[in-house]
Amino acid sequence: MSGFSPAIASLIQALRVLPGVGQKTAQRMAFMLLERQRGGAEKLAASIEHALQVVGRCQQCRTLTEGEVCAICLDPQRAEQGVLCIVESPADVIAVEQTGEFHGQYFVLMGNLSPLDGIGPKDIGLDLLEQRLQQGHIQEVILATNPTVEGEATAHYIAESAARYQIDTSRIAHGVPVGGELEYVDHRTLGHAFQGRKKV
Amino acid sequence: MSGFSPAIASLIQALRVLPGVGQKTAQRMAFMLLERQRGGAEKLAASIEHALQVVGRCQQCRTLTEGEVCAICLDPQRAEQGVLCIVESPADVIAVEQTGEFHGQYFVLMGNLSPLDGIGPKDIGLDLLEQRLQQGHIQEVILATNPTVEGEATAHYIAESAARYQIDTSRIAHGVPVGGELEYVDHRTLGHAFQGRKKV
Repeated sequence: MSGFSPAIASLIQALRVLPGVGQKTAQRMAFMLLERQRGGAEKLAASIEHALQVVGRCQQCRTLTEGEVCAICLDPQRAEQGVLCIVESPADVIAVEQTGEFHGQYFVLMGNLSPLDGIGPKDIGLDLLEQRLQQGHIQEVILATNPTVEGEATAHYIAESAARYQIDTSRIAHGVPVGGELEYVDHRTLGHAFQGRKKV
Repeated sequence: MSGFSPAIASLIQALRVLPGVGQKTAQRMAFMLLERQRGGAEKLAASIEHALQVVGRCQQCRTLTEGEVCAICLDPQRAEQGVLCIVESPADVIAVEQTGEFHGQYFVLMGNLSPLDGIGPKDIGLDLLEQRLQQGHIQEVILATNPTVEGEATAHYIAESAARYQIDTSRIAHGVPVGGELEYVDHRTLGHAFQGRKKV
Protein backbone atom coordinates (compact mmCIF):
# COMPACT_ATOMS: atom_id res chain seq x y z
CA MET A 1 0.00 0.00 0.00
CA SER A 2 1.16 3.49 -0.73
CA GLY A 3 -0.49 4.80 2.41
CA PHE A 4 -1.96 7.86 0.70
CA SER A 5 -5.69 8.40 0.74
CA PRO A 6 -7.10 8.76 -2.82
CA ALA A 7 -7.49 12.55 -2.81
CA ILE A 8 -3.90 13.01 -1.63
CA ALA A 9 -2.60 10.45 -4.14
CA SER A 10 -4.31 12.22 -7.04
CA LEU A 11 -3.09 15.63 -5.85
CA ILE A 12 0.49 14.27 -5.82
CA GLN A 13 -0.02 12.82 -9.31
CA ALA A 14 -1.43 16.14 -10.56
CA LEU A 15 1.49 18.17 -9.14
CA ARG A 16 3.92 16.09 -11.20
CA VAL A 17 2.75 17.91 -14.32
CA LEU A 18 4.90 20.86 -13.15
CA PRO A 19 8.37 21.04 -14.72
CA GLY A 20 11.14 19.57 -12.55
CA VAL A 21 8.72 18.07 -10.00
CA GLY A 22 9.19 14.35 -9.29
CA GLN A 23 7.41 12.03 -6.85
CA LYS A 24 9.23 13.19 -3.69
CA THR A 25 8.87 16.90 -4.43
CA ALA A 26 5.21 16.42 -5.32
CA GLN A 27 4.64 14.66 -1.97
CA ARG A 28 6.33 17.50 -0.13
CA MET A 29 4.24 20.07 -2.02
CA ALA A 30 0.98 18.19 -1.41
CA PHE A 31 1.59 17.82 2.33
CA MET A 32 2.63 21.43 2.68
CA LEU A 33 -0.44 22.70 0.80
CA LEU A 34 -2.76 20.57 2.94
CA GLU A 35 -1.01 21.09 6.27
CA ARG A 36 0.03 24.69 6.32
CA GLN A 37 -0.97 26.54 3.16
CA ARG A 38 -4.68 25.93 2.71
CA GLY A 39 -5.30 29.59 1.86
CA GLY A 40 -2.46 29.60 -0.64
CA ALA A 41 -3.65 26.32 -2.13
CA GLU A 42 -7.13 27.71 -2.70
CA LYS A 43 -5.66 30.79 -4.36
CA LEU A 44 -3.43 28.60 -6.54
CA ALA A 45 -6.36 26.49 -7.76
CA ALA A 46 -8.39 29.63 -8.51
CA SER A 47 -5.46 31.34 -10.31
CA ILE A 48 -4.86 28.32 -12.52
CA GLU A 49 -8.53 28.14 -13.49
CA HIS A 50 -8.79 31.88 -14.10
CA ALA A 51 -5.62 31.93 -16.22
CA LEU A 52 -6.81 28.94 -18.27
CA GLN A 53 -10.06 30.77 -18.96
CA VAL A 54 -8.73 34.17 -19.94
CA VAL A 55 -5.18 33.66 -21.25
CA GLY A 56 -4.78 32.97 -24.96
CA ARG A 57 -2.39 33.94 -27.73
CA CYS A 58 -1.86 37.50 -28.97
CA GLN A 59 -3.19 37.57 -32.54
CA GLN A 60 -0.31 39.74 -33.67
CA CYS A 61 2.79 38.39 -31.90
CA ARG A 62 1.58 34.99 -30.57
CA THR A 63 2.67 35.65 -26.96
CA LEU A 64 0.46 34.53 -24.07
CA THR A 65 -1.95 37.28 -23.11
CA GLU A 66 -5.46 38.19 -22.03
CA GLY A 67 -7.55 39.85 -24.73
CA GLU A 68 -6.97 39.56 -28.45
CA VAL A 69 -3.81 41.62 -28.76
CA CYS A 70 -1.13 42.05 -26.08
CA ALA A 71 -0.18 45.33 -24.38
CA ILE A 72 3.15 45.59 -26.24
CA CYS A 73 1.53 45.13 -29.67
CA LEU A 74 -1.14 47.72 -28.79
CA ASP A 75 1.44 50.39 -27.86
CA PRO A 76 1.63 52.87 -30.80
CA GLN A 77 5.09 54.15 -29.74
CA ARG A 78 6.46 50.64 -30.07
CA ALA A 79 4.84 50.14 -33.48
CA GLU A 80 6.43 53.40 -34.68
CA GLN A 81 9.94 51.99 -34.13
CA GLY A 82 9.45 49.50 -36.96
CA VAL A 83 11.72 46.99 -35.24
CA LEU A 84 10.67 43.38 -34.66
CA CYS A 85 12.51 41.11 -32.21
CA ILE A 86 12.05 37.38 -32.82
CA VAL A 87 12.13 35.22 -29.67
CA GLU A 88 11.25 31.62 -28.84
CA SER A 89 8.95 32.04 -25.84
CA PRO A 90 6.96 34.54 -23.73
CA ALA A 91 9.63 34.15 -21.03
CA ASP A 92 12.20 35.50 -23.52
CA VAL A 93 10.00 38.60 -24.04
CA ILE A 94 10.16 39.24 -20.30
CA ALA A 95 13.95 38.73 -20.30
CA VAL A 96 14.44 41.23 -23.15
CA GLU A 97 12.02 43.72 -21.55
CA GLN A 98 14.06 43.63 -18.36
CA THR A 99 17.18 44.84 -20.21
CA GLY A 100 15.42 48.13 -21.04
CA GLU A 101 17.44 48.16 -24.31
CA PHE A 102 14.67 47.31 -26.73
CA HIS A 103 11.64 49.49 -27.51
CA GLY A 104 10.18 47.77 -30.57
CA GLN A 105 7.75 44.89 -30.97
CA TYR A 106 8.12 41.13 -30.63
CA PHE A 107 7.22 38.03 -32.51
CA VAL A 108 7.06 34.89 -30.36
CA LEU A 109 7.72 31.61 -32.16
CA MET A 110 6.60 29.33 -29.28
CA GLY A 111 9.28 26.86 -30.29
CA ASN A 112 11.81 26.31 -33.05
CA LEU A 113 11.95 24.68 -36.46
CA SER A 114 12.61 21.01 -35.84
CA PRO A 115 11.86 18.84 -38.90
CA LEU A 116 12.76 15.65 -37.04
CA ASP A 117 10.00 16.35 -34.47
CA GLY A 118 7.60 17.33 -37.24
CA ILE A 119 7.71 21.02 -36.35
CA GLY A 120 7.59 23.01 -39.60
CA PRO A 121 7.37 26.75 -40.41
CA LYS A 122 3.58 26.94 -39.88
CA ASP A 123 3.79 25.35 -36.41
CA ILE A 124 5.92 28.23 -35.19
CA GLY A 125 3.81 30.88 -36.96
CA LEU A 126 6.25 31.72 -39.74
CA ASP A 127 3.33 32.18 -42.16
CA LEU A 128 1.98 34.89 -39.84
CA LEU A 129 5.47 36.42 -39.62
CA GLU A 130 5.79 36.41 -43.42
CA GLN A 131 2.49 38.37 -43.72
CA ARG A 132 3.78 40.84 -41.18
CA LEU A 133 7.05 41.42 -43.06
CA GLN A 134 5.11 41.76 -46.34
CA GLN A 135 3.00 44.64 -44.93
CA GLY A 136 6.07 46.88 -45.06
CA HIS A 137 5.87 48.45 -41.55
CA ILE A 138 8.91 46.58 -40.29
CA GLN A 139 12.30 48.07 -41.15
CA GLU A 140 14.48 45.88 -38.99
CA VAL A 141 14.37 42.34 -37.64
CA ILE A 142 16.47 41.29 -34.63
CA LEU A 143 16.90 37.54 -34.29
CA ALA A 144 17.01 36.59 -30.60
CA THR A 145 16.43 32.83 -30.78
CA ASN A 146 18.66 30.73 -28.53
CA PRO A 147 22.13 29.74 -29.77
CA THR A 148 21.18 26.06 -30.12
CA VAL A 149 21.22 24.08 -33.39
CA GLU A 150 17.44 24.53 -33.79
CA GLY A 151 17.56 28.18 -32.75
CA GLU A 152 20.29 28.94 -35.28
CA ALA A 153 18.45 27.08 -38.06
CA THR A 154 15.27 29.00 -37.28
CA ALA A 155 17.16 32.31 -37.24
CA HIS A 156 18.71 31.45 -40.62
CA TYR A 157 15.30 30.61 -42.10
CA ILE A 158 13.78 33.89 -40.89
CA ALA A 159 16.80 35.90 -42.11
CA GLU A 160 16.17 34.52 -45.62
CA SER A 161 12.49 35.54 -45.45
CA ALA A 162 13.41 39.04 -44.33
CA ALA A 163 16.00 39.36 -47.10
CA ARG A 164 13.25 38.82 -49.70
CA TYR A 165 11.54 42.00 -48.44
CA GLN A 166 14.81 43.98 -48.17
CA ILE A 167 14.51 44.20 -44.39
CA ASP A 168 17.68 44.74 -42.33
CA THR A 169 18.30 41.70 -40.18
CA SER A 170 20.68 41.23 -37.25
CA ARG A 171 21.43 38.44 -34.77
CA ILE A 172 21.99 39.27 -31.07
CA ALA A 173 25.63 38.91 -29.97
CA HIS A 174 26.84 35.76 -28.28
CA GLY A 175 29.95 35.90 -26.13
CA VAL A 176 31.35 35.91 -22.64
CA PRO A 177 28.58 36.81 -20.13
CA VAL A 178 29.16 40.03 -18.17
CA GLY A 179 30.66 39.03 -14.83
CA GLY A 180 31.75 35.68 -16.31
CA GLU A 181 35.35 34.50 -16.34
CA LEU A 182 37.06 33.26 -19.48
CA GLU A 183 38.33 30.21 -17.67
CA TYR A 184 34.81 28.95 -16.96
CA VAL A 185 33.17 29.79 -20.28
CA ASP A 186 32.59 26.85 -22.67
CA HIS A 187 34.65 26.78 -25.87
CA ARG A 188 31.73 27.42 -28.23
CA THR A 189 30.77 30.61 -26.38
CA LEU A 190 34.39 31.71 -26.34
CA GLY A 191 34.59 30.96 -30.08
CA HIS A 192 31.55 33.23 -30.64
CA ALA A 193 33.21 35.90 -28.48
CA PHE A 194 36.31 35.90 -30.73
CA GLN A 195 34.34 35.88 -33.99
CA GLY A 196 32.18 38.75 -32.74
CA ARG A 197 35.07 40.89 -31.41
CA LYS A 198 34.81 44.67 -31.82
CA LYS A 199 37.45 47.34 -32.43
CA VAL A 200 38.18 49.44 -29.36
CA MET B 1 6.62 47.19 -16.51
CA SER B 2 6.80 43.48 -15.78
CA GLY B 3 5.29 42.61 -19.14
CA PHE B 4 2.97 39.97 -17.67
CA SER B 5 -0.74 40.30 -18.17
CA PRO B 6 -2.63 40.34 -14.83
CA ALA B 7 -3.90 36.72 -14.95
CA ILE B 8 -0.38 35.42 -15.69
CA ALA B 9 1.16 37.62 -12.99
CA SER B 10 -1.27 36.33 -10.37
CA LEU B 11 -0.73 32.72 -11.45
CA ILE B 12 3.05 33.21 -11.02
CA GLN B 13 2.46 34.77 -7.61
CA ALA B 14 0.18 31.89 -6.56
CA LEU B 15 2.70 29.23 -7.65
CA ARG B 16 5.28 30.72 -5.29
CA VAL B 17 3.35 29.25 -2.36
CA LEU B 18 4.89 25.88 -3.30
CA PRO B 19 8.01 24.94 -1.31
CA GLY B 20 11.28 25.69 -3.12
CA VAL B 21 9.61 27.66 -5.90
CA GLY B 22 11.01 31.15 -6.51
CA GLN B 23 10.11 33.78 -9.11
CA LYS B 24 11.99 32.21 -12.04
CA THR B 25 10.71 28.69 -11.42
CA ALA B 26 7.16 30.01 -10.97
CA GLN B 27 7.44 31.82 -14.33
CA ARG B 28 8.62 28.64 -16.01
CA MET B 29 5.79 26.66 -14.43
CA ALA B 30 3.15 29.23 -15.39
CA PHE B 31 4.27 29.41 -19.02
CA MET B 32 4.47 25.64 -19.29
CA LEU B 33 1.00 25.16 -17.85
CA LEU B 34 -0.50 27.74 -20.21
CA GLU B 35 1.48 26.80 -23.33
CA ARG B 36 1.66 23.05 -23.30
CA GLN B 37 -0.13 21.51 -20.33
CA ARG B 38 -3.62 22.98 -20.29
CA GLY B 39 -5.17 19.58 -19.60
CA GLY B 40 -2.73 18.93 -16.78
CA ALA B 41 -3.29 22.42 -15.39
CA GLU B 42 -7.05 21.88 -15.27
CA LYS B 43 -6.54 18.57 -13.48
CA LEU B 44 -4.15 20.21 -11.03
CA ALA B 45 -6.63 22.95 -10.12
CA ALA B 46 -9.40 20.38 -9.68
CA SER B 47 -7.19 18.07 -7.56
CA ILE B 48 -6.18 20.90 -5.25
CA GLU B 49 -9.81 21.94 -4.75
CA HIS B 50 -10.98 18.38 -4.21
CA ALA B 51 -8.22 17.62 -1.70
CA LEU B 52 -8.91 20.84 0.21
CA GLN B 53 -12.56 19.84 0.47
CA VAL B 54 -12.18 16.23 1.56
CA VAL B 55 -8.81 15.94 3.31
CA GLY B 56 -8.70 16.61 7.03
CA ARG B 57 -6.97 15.18 10.08
CA CYS B 58 -7.45 11.61 11.33
CA GLN B 59 -9.20 11.92 14.73
CA GLN B 60 -7.06 9.18 16.18
CA CYS B 61 -3.53 9.72 14.82
CA ARG B 62 -3.73 13.28 13.39
CA THR B 63 -2.39 12.31 9.93
CA LEU B 64 -3.90 13.85 6.79
CA THR B 65 -6.75 11.72 5.49
CA GLU B 66 -10.22 11.62 4.00
CA GLY B 67 -12.94 10.54 6.40
CA GLU B 68 -12.78 10.80 10.18
CA VAL B 69 -10.25 8.06 10.85
CA CYS B 70 -7.43 6.96 8.50
CA ALA B 71 -7.09 3.49 6.93
CA ILE B 72 -4.18 2.52 9.18
CA CYS B 73 -6.05 3.41 12.40
CA LEU B 74 -9.12 1.49 11.15
CA ASP B 75 -7.15 -1.72 10.53
CA PRO B 76 -7.89 -4.12 13.45
CA GLN B 77 -4.72 -6.19 12.84
CA ARG B 78 -2.63 -3.10 13.36
CA ALA B 79 -4.50 -2.15 16.54
CA GLU B 80 -3.87 -5.67 17.90
CA GLN B 81 -0.12 -5.13 17.82
CA GLY B 82 -0.35 -2.53 20.58
CA VAL B 83 2.64 -0.64 19.18
CA LEU B 84 2.56 3.10 18.52
CA CYS B 85 5.16 4.82 16.34
CA ILE B 86 5.51 8.58 16.92
CA VAL B 87 6.47 10.58 13.82
CA GLU B 88 6.60 14.26 12.92
CA SER B 89 4.64 14.32 9.66
CA PRO B 90 2.41 12.32 7.29
CA ALA B 91 5.41 12.03 4.95
CA ASP B 92 7.25 10.17 7.73
CA VAL B 93 4.35 7.68 7.95
CA ILE B 94 4.83 6.93 4.26
CA ALA B 95 8.58 6.55 4.73
CA VAL B 96 8.12 4.06 7.60
CA GLU B 97 5.42 2.16 5.68
CA GLN B 98 7.81 1.72 2.77
CA THR B 99 10.30 -0.15 4.98
CA GLY B 100 7.73 -2.92 5.57
CA GLU B 101 9.26 -3.34 9.05
CA PHE B 102 6.48 -1.82 11.10
CA HIS B 103 2.96 -3.22 11.47
CA GLY B 104 1.57 -1.15 14.35
CA GLN B 105 -0.16 2.23 14.47
CA TYR B 106 1.12 5.78 14.21
CA PHE B 107 0.74 9.06 16.00
CA VAL B 108 1.59 12.09 13.87
CA LEU B 109 2.76 15.17 15.77
CA MET B 110 2.57 17.59 12.81
CA GLY B 111 5.61 19.39 14.17
CA ASN B 112 7.84 19.40 17.21
CA LEU B 113 7.93 21.01 20.61
CA SER B 114 9.50 24.42 20.16
CA PRO B 115 8.92 26.76 23.10
CA LEU B 116 10.77 29.62 21.38
CA ASP B 117 8.28 29.53 18.49
CA GLY B 118 5.38 29.19 20.93
CA ILE B 119 4.72 25.55 20.03
CA GLY B 120 3.74 23.72 23.21
CA PRO B 121 2.53 20.17 23.97
CA LYS B 122 -1.09 20.86 22.97
CA ASP B 123 -0.09 22.26 19.57
CA ILE B 124 1.44 18.92 18.58
CA GLY B 125 -1.43 16.90 20.05
CA LEU B 126 0.38 15.58 23.12
CA ASP B 127 -2.85 15.87 25.14
CA LEU B 128 -4.50 13.49 22.65
CA LEU B 129 -1.48 11.18 22.85
CA GLU B 130 -1.62 11.19 26.65
CA GLN B 131 -5.28 10.07 26.53
CA ARG B 132 -4.31 7.30 24.14
CA LEU B 133 -1.53 6.04 26.41
CA GLN B 134 -3.88 6.23 29.40
CA GLN B 135 -6.40 3.88 27.72
CA GLY B 136 -3.98 0.99 28.19
CA HIS B 137 -4.11 -0.57 24.71
CA ILE B 138 -0.58 0.51 23.86
CA GLN B 139 2.22 -1.71 25.13
CA GLU B 140 5.10 -0.13 23.26
CA VAL B 141 5.99 3.31 21.95
CA ILE B 142 8.63 3.77 19.23
CA LEU B 143 9.97 7.32 18.98
CA ALA B 144 10.75 8.14 15.35
CA THR B 145 11.05 11.93 15.49
CA ASN B 146 13.97 13.42 13.57
CA PRO B 147 17.39 13.60 15.25
CA THR B 148 17.29 17.40 15.50
CA VAL B 149 17.39 19.36 18.76
CA GLU B 150 13.57 19.82 18.68
CA GLY B 151 12.98 16.22 17.64
CA GLU B 152 15.13 14.91 20.49
CA ALA B 153 13.44 17.20 23.02
CA THR B 154 10.01 16.06 21.83
CA ALA B 155 11.07 12.41 22.00
CA HIS B 156 12.35 12.96 25.54
CA TYR B 157 9.07 14.60 26.60
CA ILE B 158 6.98 11.73 25.19
CA ALA B 159 9.27 9.11 26.75
CA GLU B 160 8.57 10.67 30.17
CA SER B 161 4.80 10.53 29.54
CA ALA B 162 5.00 6.88 28.51
CA ALA B 163 7.07 6.02 31.58
CA ARG B 164 4.23 7.29 33.79
CA TYR B 165 1.99 4.55 32.32
CA GLN B 166 4.72 1.86 32.45
CA ILE B 167 4.85 1.62 28.64
CA ASP B 168 8.04 0.31 26.99
CA THR B 169 9.61 3.07 24.97
CA SER B 170 12.38 2.92 22.36
CA ARG B 171 14.06 5.39 20.03
CA ILE B 172 14.87 4.38 16.43
CA ALA B 173 18.61 3.84 15.81
CA HIS B 174 20.70 6.63 14.33
CA GLY B 175 23.95 5.71 12.62
CA VAL B 176 25.76 5.27 9.33
CA PRO B 177 23.20 4.97 6.48
CA VAL B 178 23.24 1.67 4.57
CA GLY B 179 25.39 2.22 1.47
CA GLY B 180 27.00 5.26 3.10
CA GLU B 181 30.73 5.57 3.62
CA LEU B 182 32.26 6.42 7.00
CA GLU B 183 34.46 9.04 5.39
CA TYR B 184 31.48 11.09 4.24
CA VAL B 185 29.24 10.75 7.30
CA ASP B 186 29.08 13.78 9.60
CA HIS B 187 30.67 13.44 13.02
CA ARG B 188 27.40 13.57 14.99
CA THR B 189 25.95 10.66 13.02
CA LEU B 190 29.18 8.71 13.44
CA GLY B 191 29.08 9.47 17.17
CA HIS B 192 25.54 8.02 17.31
CA ALA B 193 26.77 4.95 15.39
CA PHE B 194 29.47 4.30 18.00
CA GLN B 195 27.16 4.85 20.97
CA GLY B 196 24.57 2.54 19.43
CA ARG B 197 27.01 -0.25 18.49
CA LYS B 198 25.81 -3.87 18.81
CA LYS B 199 27.63 -7.08 19.71
CA VAL B 200 28.24 -9.37 16.75
